[in-house]
Amino acid sequence: MAASASSLLAAPASSSCGAISPQLPRGAPAAASVASPSRHSCYLLRASPSRRHRSRFVANAAPTMQPPAESRVSTVVDVDLGDRSYPIYIGAGLLDEPDLLQRHVHGKRVLVVTNTTVAPLYLDKVTWALTHNNLNVSVESVILPDGEKYKNMDTLMKVFDKAVESRFDRRCTFVALGGGVIGDMCGFAAAAFLRGVNFIQIPTTLMAQVDSSVGGKTGINHPLGKNLIGAFYQPQCVLIDTNTLNTLPDRELASGIAEVVKYGLIRDAPFFEWQEKNMPKLLAREPNALAYAIKRSCENKAEVVAQDEKESGLRATLNLGHTFGHAIETGTGYGAWLHGEAVAAGTVMATDMSHRLGWIDDSIRKRVVDILKQAKLPIAPPETMTVEKFKNIMASCKPKGRGRRN
Amino acid sequence: MAASASSLLAAPASSSCGAISPQLPRGAPAAASVASPSRHSCYLLRASPSRRHRSRFVANAAPTMQPPAESRVSTVVDVDLGDRSYPIYIGAGLLDEPDLLQRHVHGKRVLVVTNTTVAPLYLDKVTWALTHNNLNVSVESVILPDGEKYKNMDTLMKVFDKAVESRFDRRCTFVALGGGVIGDMCGFAAAAFLRGVNFIQIPTTLMAQVDSSVGGKTGINHPLGKNLIGAFYQPQCVLIDTNTLNTLPDRELASGIAEVVKYGLIRDAPFFEWQEKNMPKLLAREPNALAYAIKRSCENKAEVVAQDEKESGLRATLNLGHTFGHAIETGTGYGAWLHGEAVAAGTVMATDMSHRLGWIDDSIRKRVVDILKQAKLPIAPPETMTVEKFKNIMASCKPKGRGRRN
Repeated sequence: MAASASSLLAAPASSSCGAISPQLPRGAPAAASVASPSRHSCYLLRASPSRRHRSRFVANAAPTMQPPAESRVSTVVDVDLGDRSYPIYIGAGLLDEPDLLQRHVHGKRVLVVTNTTVAPLYLDKVTWALTHNNLNVSVESVILPDGEKYKNMDTLMKVFDKAVESRFDRRCTFVALGGGVIGDMCGFAAAAFLRGVNFIQIPTTLMAQVDSSVGGKTGINHPLGKNLIGAFYQPQCVLIDTNTLNTLPDRELASGIAEVVKYGLIRDAPFFEWQEKNMPKLLAREPNALAYAIKRSCENKAEVVAQDEKESGLRATLNLGHTFGHAIETGTGYGAWLHGEAVAAGTVMATDMSHRLGWIDDSIRKRVVDILKQAKLPIAPPETMTVEKFKNIMASCKPKGRGRRN
Repeated sequence: MAASASSLLAAPASSSCGAISPQLPRGAPAAASVASPSRHSCYLLRASPSRRHRSRFVANAAPTMQPPAESRVSTVVDVDLGDRSYPIYIGAGLLDEPDLLQRHVHGKRVLVVTNTTVAPLYLDKVTWALTHNNLNVSVESVILPDGEKYKNMDTLMKVFDKAVESRFDRRCTFVALGGGVIGDMCGFAAAAFLRGVNFIQIPTTLMAQVDSSVGGKTGINHPLGKNLIGAFYQPQCVLIDTNTLNTLPDRELASGIAEVVKYGLIRDAPFFEWQEKNMPKLLAREPNALAYAIKRSCENKAEVVAQDEKESGLRATLNLGHTFGHAIETGTGYGAWLHGEAVAAGTVMATDMSHRLGWIDDSIRKRVVDILKQAKLPIAPPETMTVEKFKNIMASCKPKGRGRRN
């Protein structure tokens, strides 16, 4: 079942960031009012009970999309972007199905981009899936150091070096095997290598599966701000093998849950309520609960991205908690806090600011804090992040409104 | 008057590179047969008198495009790319018309990217043109070292550094003020900064005016090959003030002429014949001759690009002489030979190969050599470029066929 997308709890604020405060509507969820991002740099929660917003249905949860009869694919979410549309496959054991992956490979040469943590776990399996009964394809790999602090130009150059030294031409496919950092870097490398080659996402962290692998935002960090250099570049497909979560550390799992919570808050109240009841199952890695949370998250994100691929308006709602969150990541040094940890604290700050502005009542603030606490996520920034530090970082690294190219 | 585009003298070869030879058809010009680039890596001359190819007319040379009444714009060539269409303004003294430039600026902040050679000549003038009677716009600039050898990631980062440190947001405009290297780097920086900001080209060399500023190819070099990292990214407009050629060194002027000759060879025989008669005027910088050569070159390029923006076929004809030329540039070290010098020698090699393959007769080869000699351009590669060296470089750095994204 697709996300309802008729229940929205959050919206961009009509002011700049600074204050804090929250409250969640009781009963029927409230609708969003999305204002122009050119005037807004911070996305807060707002209850607007007088308006209900029903989105066009673009995320389509079909049971299968021409998979083999014995396929383990449990869900396909289609991201509808015209000639850049692509499927997200979600299921346990999808890496054991070579056909699924191979049908999206273009050309005869594949470059798998992964890191030192993921390579020992899944590189052989992915190489097998790419080449099984398929002598036409040869696979190279580049193994990058693991962590947000390596999401920079120096590391990106290692991908280009490998592709150039291996004499790849335009008829090749880059495969991102790893978490959000790998997906962002591999995606940007695919966008820029020979001005664009084919690209597949195999996200192995919950964060990447529910958020960063979907929607085509790729890029790297600048020392002064996150994701300041990059491209909008869509993959051929996203293949989510939920079995890869079995090897994910608890802290990484919780980090991904921060984004799952976000979807509930910004546009899917029934999903938020489901999370409030099922958080223990998610933390215990109950397979069906995880699969459902991933599916519903992807549906929500696919719907938003299909309506606003390049963030001219609606897509900016996905940034709830990210303005403060990015400042925390930048201010504490990339990697000290996981992305989802920073987003969790940022979400509480945004919720608090919404409350102080009188847009939501205190019960929402409390429910947000409670669910993040349940997920063992931080609900406040580190003490080193003073108000002054927040203001300085947020002034320098926050992209505001977009121009013609939206 | 727009280029005829009905007369094509060149086409991709149906073999890989290696041999050489030429000949130009007498009387009626021959048509091109454009084969799939996936099988071909080298673009040679071929006379195909049995077929005439008439292109759809997309390059539109209107006398003006809503310029002010006193405008000095002599020609506007429109590049027709749907919602990415843009005008190329060509005329003497266009930088003295603030309105022309200002109408294409988005947002209130402009970053002019230029180099140490061009900045002392034109940065003040461009800053004036951007800000005259326009208090809303503020201008920053970044002055890069001059030369092809600096077209790399380290130099590109200086553009990002400046934009980030100056706290630019998405509503800004990057302006490329300089030759092809500046245009390529500034364009790629505009494509990647915050995943895409607005961008204007002000080319100040003949090479940039007739070739590199038109068509949206942006990027940087990798130590192992030219232009291996980049983006297809179209500007808001190209503003060609032909007065800027008054400060161009002779060698740079000749370099640009190599690309002018190319358009004649690949698709515009009357233009080639005009060049044969008017080369002395071009070398003497006779303003009307230069303006005509620029206009006709832009028309030819605009037509090709509008039909094949991302080089899935036809656009590859623009690479005549470039496979050998890029190898010369890579093999001799970026900057030792100017791009047009390498292309000139590469064009003779490609022509020679075409002749050896029996596709064109010797008279064409002679006319190609003669016109390049007239322009004081090299007609052979340096002795250090052995056959072995050519083969090694061409095997490693030549992008071949493209995939879905065309």
